[in-house]
Amino acid sequence: MALAATFASKISDGSLSVGIIGLGYVGLPTAIGFHDAGFNVWGVDVSQRTVDMVKAGQNPTGDPDVDDIVPAPGTENWHITTSTAEAVPHCDVVLVTVPTPITHDLKPDLSYVEAAGRAVFEAIPKGSNTIVVLESTVYPGVTAQTWMPIVEELGLVIGEDVNIAYCPERFNPGDAAHGVRSVARVIGCADEDVGHALVELYSKLTSEDVRYVGKLEVAEAAKVIENVQRDINIALVNELARIFPAMDVDVEDVLSAAATKWNFHRYTPGVGVGGHCIPVDPYYMIQRAADVGVPAGLITAARAVNRSMPNHVAGVLHDLLYQAGVPAGEGRVLLLGWSYKPEVGDPRETPAEPLAEALQAKNVHVAAWDPHLEGAELPDSVEVIADLEAAEGFDLAVLVTAHQACLSLDWGALQGRMRRSIVYDGRRVLDLEALGALGWQAHAVGRPASE
Amino acid sequence: MALAATFASKISDGSLSVGIIGLGYVGLPTAIGFHDAGFNVWGVDVSQRTVDMVKAGQNPTGDPDVDDIVPAPGTENWHITTSTAEAVPHCDVVLVTVPTPITHDLKPDLSYVEAAGRAVFEAIPKGSNTIVVLESTVYPGVTAQTWMPIVEELGLVIGEDVNIAYCPERFNPGDAAHGVRSVARVIGCADEDVGHALVELYSKLTSEDVRYVGKLEVAEAAKVIENVQRDINIALVNELARIFPAMDVDVEDVLSAAATKWNFHRYTPGVGVGGHCIPVDPYYMIQRAADVGVPAGLITAARAVNRSMPNHVAGVLHDLLYQAGVPAGEGRVLLLGWSYKPEVGDPRETPAEPLAEALQAKNVHVAAWDPHLEGAELPDSVEVIADLEAAEGFDLAVLVTAHQACLSLDWGALQGRMRRSIVYDGRRVLDLEALGALGWQAHAVGRPASE
Repeated sequence: MALAATFASKISDGSLSVGIIGLGYVGLPTAIGFHDAGFNVWGVDVSQRTVDMVKAGQNPTGDPDVDDIVPAPGTENWHITTSTAEAVPHCDVVLVTVPTPITHDLKPDLSYVEAAGRAVFEAIPKGSNTIVVLESTVYPGVTAQTWMPIVEELGLVIGEDVNIAYCPERFNPGDAAHGVRSVARVIGCADEDVGHALVELYSKLTSEDVRYVGKLEVAEAAKVIENVQRDINIALVNELARIFPAMDVDVEDVLSAAATKWNFHRYTPGVGVGGHCIPVDPYYMIQRAADVGVPAGLITAARAVNRSMPNHVAGVLHDLLYQAGVPAGEGRVLLLGWSYKPEVGDPRETPAEPLAEALQAKNVHVAAWDPHLEGAELPDSVEVIADLEAAEGFDLAVLVTAHQACLSLDWGALQGRMRRSIVYDGRRVLDLEALGALGWQAHAVGRPASE
Repeated sequence: MALAATFASKISDGSLSVGIIGLGYVGLPTAIGFHDAGFNVWGVDVSQRTVDMVKAGQNPTGDPDVDDIVPAPGTENWHITTSTAEAVPHCDVVLVTVPTPITHDLKPDLSYVEAAGRAVFEAIPKGSNTIVVLESTVYPGVTAQTWMPIVEELGLVIGEDVNIAYCPERFNPGDAAHGVRSVARVIGCADEDVGHALVELYSKLTSEDVRYVGKLEVAEAAKVIENVQRDINIALVNELARIFPAMDVDVEDVLSAAATKWNFHRYTPGVGVGGHCIPVDPYYMIQRAADVGVPAGLITAARAVNRSMPNHVAGVLHDLLYQAGVPAGEGRVLLLGWSYKPEVGDPRETPAEPLAEALQAKNVHVAAWDPHLEGAELPDSVEVIADLEAAEGFDLAVLVTAHQACLSLDWGALQGRMRRSIVYDGRRVLDLEALGALGWQAHAVGRPASE
């Protein structure tokens, strides 16, 4: 446990330096967390705008939880730069927190992981035994397969110049109770000594359990299946949200009844699943299962259900317009919320986008209002409503994101400005009876049209 | 709330009579529970053997939790008979707890529900307003579709002669913590007054929440999706148990790592899913979804995974025999446990049966030992091992059921009597390292063969 002991000593005398590559919604709070925990922190991002904002003490992420915690300019042990080459030689440990999106053909895009890794490895001094930890979500095998060829190409020796580990982030935007300082972590590393050294380090970051779980692939797999399991459970309630209304039963009544059982997991159906993890990670697993020749039929089926929800809902909405007597091509729909998650200003992978596209494909005019986003963050094809008070002449209002601002808007006043007063609750968060009393014709995902 | 008030009065003066049709693993503990709660109980079963045993104070079910609680002969307010016609006229409420198995073509078999219902309705006195409650698992719509034609045919009037309700049993064999006296219940009924009357009644049976959830179909659907959700979550870990070993990763390491996350649901892979609910109920849902023309692709995919596990494991076991040099047609496999669930003596829907069949189809000789079952309860084609001490000459021992007796058997002595010492843990409950130290070549579901 030589390295763990060295780490412990450096941790106690405050001389350990931590580098964070990528100052996004994961990296920035992580960097701040390590700084708060007493470490010397080097933060790196390729974006000049991000670096300028962070240096100025501002929050470039859309996460309001980060708003007030970015260190002020001139804070000690807080170094922010666009240059990986500048930062890395100062660091005992470098954490890589870059995005791993999916490409348009639903394959994992590992180019950020590869580029960030290369920049880090090129900057590592020989003999420094720097530990490089990937935190980005990947599928099992990716860390070694992506980074080891670079390590070898550069002539670095594992255990002398560099060590590689994987510690998946478990960031949940908008969920302050499970921030980087208060979430359990798992560490995978081929070298058990290095694994235990990282347990020492991360135990200073979080108050929760930090566990060495074995080789890289175990930790990689753990991260992916956390999101795969969530995708599957959401897919089930979404599948049921299509089946039960056809039986004249409201899926929410059924889920509430089932939830009285001690071992039932309560999930809520919706217009679709968004964000950086749940709609993305299952494709990693499907890809890797295909690589090793084993079917992933269940994971694939779940993805199919969740991915088709926006299109399914668009069909339901179009039927509502038709039944309300709106002539073809003249329907006007107002989306309330665009972000993929309540209280978060983040349009990436939002189901609002395929929902809008599916409506537009049916010649429906689509407008959207989201107080957490700038208009420029929405697609050009969508009419941006900056001031909800000025929104008028719509046939149908759709609650897409359960922002508090959407729930508590003046529904009576909005009803008065609609051309037709149809509302569709895409998140099952509205009081449909109360809306009915205000004159709305209220519908919801998973609810029979007749109710 | 007239009926609820009448009920409350009859409950308080101890004059309410409850009939239970079907004294199986659900009905018998339910009858005992209502008797213990102070009610006058009439228990009916079509099996003369069951009635004789219960009358004698014996336990005809395989559930050891019922062993010591069957009332002794001559107990007051405890009437057991094979005659529905005799019992029903005495009863204010009749609960129907008959089996709803699936047919060989995977369709729900509702013949018991129909026959029991007919016998009850034929015995109901006109004007008695007897409440008939179905507790058997069915899919949404079944209670009304099966029973209402009989009610109409017999000229009974709903609300005057009879009322119909649905209150799904939530029995979990072998799980004393969630017995009939301590599990939340949901009640569905078209008549809200009747629903609330039943809430009064069931609240005397159980210490947990009893809730009126609306019409029959809501309660029917709740029951089915509880088991569907469980089937899907087990299917996921079973799918992963096939994928991860192909990546040289043990699925249990991954699941344990993921389980450190606050919202992960821990399930364990196995040789297959058994019992009366989980492998059965999803077919009800699939059937009903097909009836209303909505795809149930996810539920179907989950069933496919779980249903194929015994066959998958048989293939793995056959490979182990082949790699150990056992000549084709000479393999001898010993199954440890046959029951579908630990500590329960119940062979119905056990995955042991398709596992044995798949091995036999590969010309492997299959023997089984289960201290919770009588030999006659196993198929004729399987050699029954009554005394494990006499079991010898096997190549491979497979832990099928996590009975305590299987876990704590003398593994050292068994190893000495094997022809080859291969063990396969089909439930991930054995200490594989300890078995290795005893000379076993240890394998397990979801574990790479190389470990």
